[in-house]
Amino acid sequence: MNTVLILAGGRGTRLGSDMPKQFLMVDGRPLIMYCLETFNLHPLVDNIVIVISKEWEDFMTEWLDREQIAKFRDFAPAGKSRQHSIWYGLQKIQTLGAQNDDIVIVHDAARPCVGVDLITGCVENLNDADAAMPVITVKDTTYMSKDGIRIDSLLNRDELYAGQAPESFRYGKYYRLHENMTDDELSAVRGTTEIAYRNGLAVRMFPGDESNYKITTQDDFEKFRMQIENKGVNN
Amino acid sequence: MNTVLILAGGRGTRLGSDMPKQFLMVDGRPLIMYCLETFNLHPLVDNIVIVISKEWEDFMTEWLDREQIAKFRDFAPAGKSRQHSIWYGLQKIQTLGAQNDDIVIVHDAARPCVGVDLITGCVENLNDADAAMPVITVKDTTYMSKDGIRIDSLLNRDELYAGQAPESFRYGKYYRLHENMTDDELSAVRGTTEIAYRNGLAVRMFPGDESNYKITTQDDFEKFRMQIENKGVNN
Repeated sequence: MNTVLILAGGRGTRLGSDMPKQFLMVDGRPLIMYCLETFNLHPLVDNIVIVISKEWEDFMTEWLDREQIAKFRDFAPAGKSRQHSIWYGLQKIQTLGAQNDDIVIVHDAARPCVGVDLITGCVENLNDADAAMPVITVKDTTYMSKDGIRIDSLLNRDELYAGQAPESFRYGKYYRLHENMTDDELSAVRGTTEIAYRNGLAVRMFPGDESNYKITTQDDFEKFRMQIENKGVNN
Repeated sequence: MNTVLILAGGRGTRLGSDMPKQFLMVDGRPLIMYCLETFNLHPLVDNIVIVISKEWEDFMTEWLDREQIAKFRDFAPAGKSRQHSIWYGLQKIQTLGAQNDDIVIVHDAARPCVGVDLITGCVENLNDADAAMPVITVKDTTYMSKDGIRIDSLLNRDELYAGQAPESFRYGKYYRLHENMTDDELSAVRGTTEIAYRNGLAVRMFPGDESNYKITTQDDFEKFRMQIENKGVNN
């Protein structure tokens, strides 16, 4: 059983609206629906769980009905940190009867352009790993510096990779990592795969997709809006 | 004497045009004119030298006249690598009578949004350094991996910085680095400041500007075009 956990609990309103970005409308539908549609149509996805703040559940339910996201199973409550949200999501997935060897795929609602191949990669790369993560190469010359003024070292760009989402995990192993963590430890986690790596799970990187960008700034949002409107998708 | 070296020798035509990107028209003027205008107006800039392929000199001369880039001094020939181009530029600057303690500021024609403060920073940060470089923080979770499959290490994002342009140098010290390099060594250089750092010059990093992005892809180009057209600049 492969379950997708969509993280949509963010309250970030820095795109200049009162609404968290994942619910902003693009060509007549909330941003979050773009990735939901892709996951819902993917043959390797069985279940979808959405991590969301209580006050957005009604809004979301209406859109899930309207667009017939048939694989949607349930909501999980948003936590005080991203990793807390993931942990609540993993607990919700357990109530759906998840087994240790099942797969959980963690995705960000703010990455609307996730492609079919990345989702397939998330599943297939777990054949010989506990976790899998799409990565893209780093284009900038990257320096390490403790103080931001003096260079401590120059990194070899050919060996640098930036993590993307979605990231996938064997359910049981990933769940147990969280079970053993304190509240503070959960708050300190900075990357979905980071804790898997730090705790000795076998993580496999695979090629991500430049076009699967995360919407963070107003520029990103405008880029996506133009992309959709120019494509004439959903018209 | 502070001289700006504008790198415009690239033949990259991957933006889908026959023309190198730095000469593509945006709102009625070639892309390269946007940074040239900023440098020309900056009170700390005395001279401008442009590294360019022979066949583009006439085109460029016409635009330099039309927009009255009064600080323009001369062209230098484009080299087979970026660092070769810089080296030819440094030699051209010598013919203008540059002294050891003079400053050379190296910029990319494909970064049209360079701001006044960055140029000022390039000069002021050389008060106690041989080289200065604007940097921005790295937002992605960044991993090191030799094979692109297994993670060798996870980098501390708080200590990672990505280099931008323009980068500045004390003329004499930077010139002499190049004098001692073989042709192969020049070809192997990957960053303008990299060779300064590797050869023991005192490099000072200072805060760059997210909006000073480099135009590499068609998306970047469209973003800049929209930015200019929406601003109504030059209308």
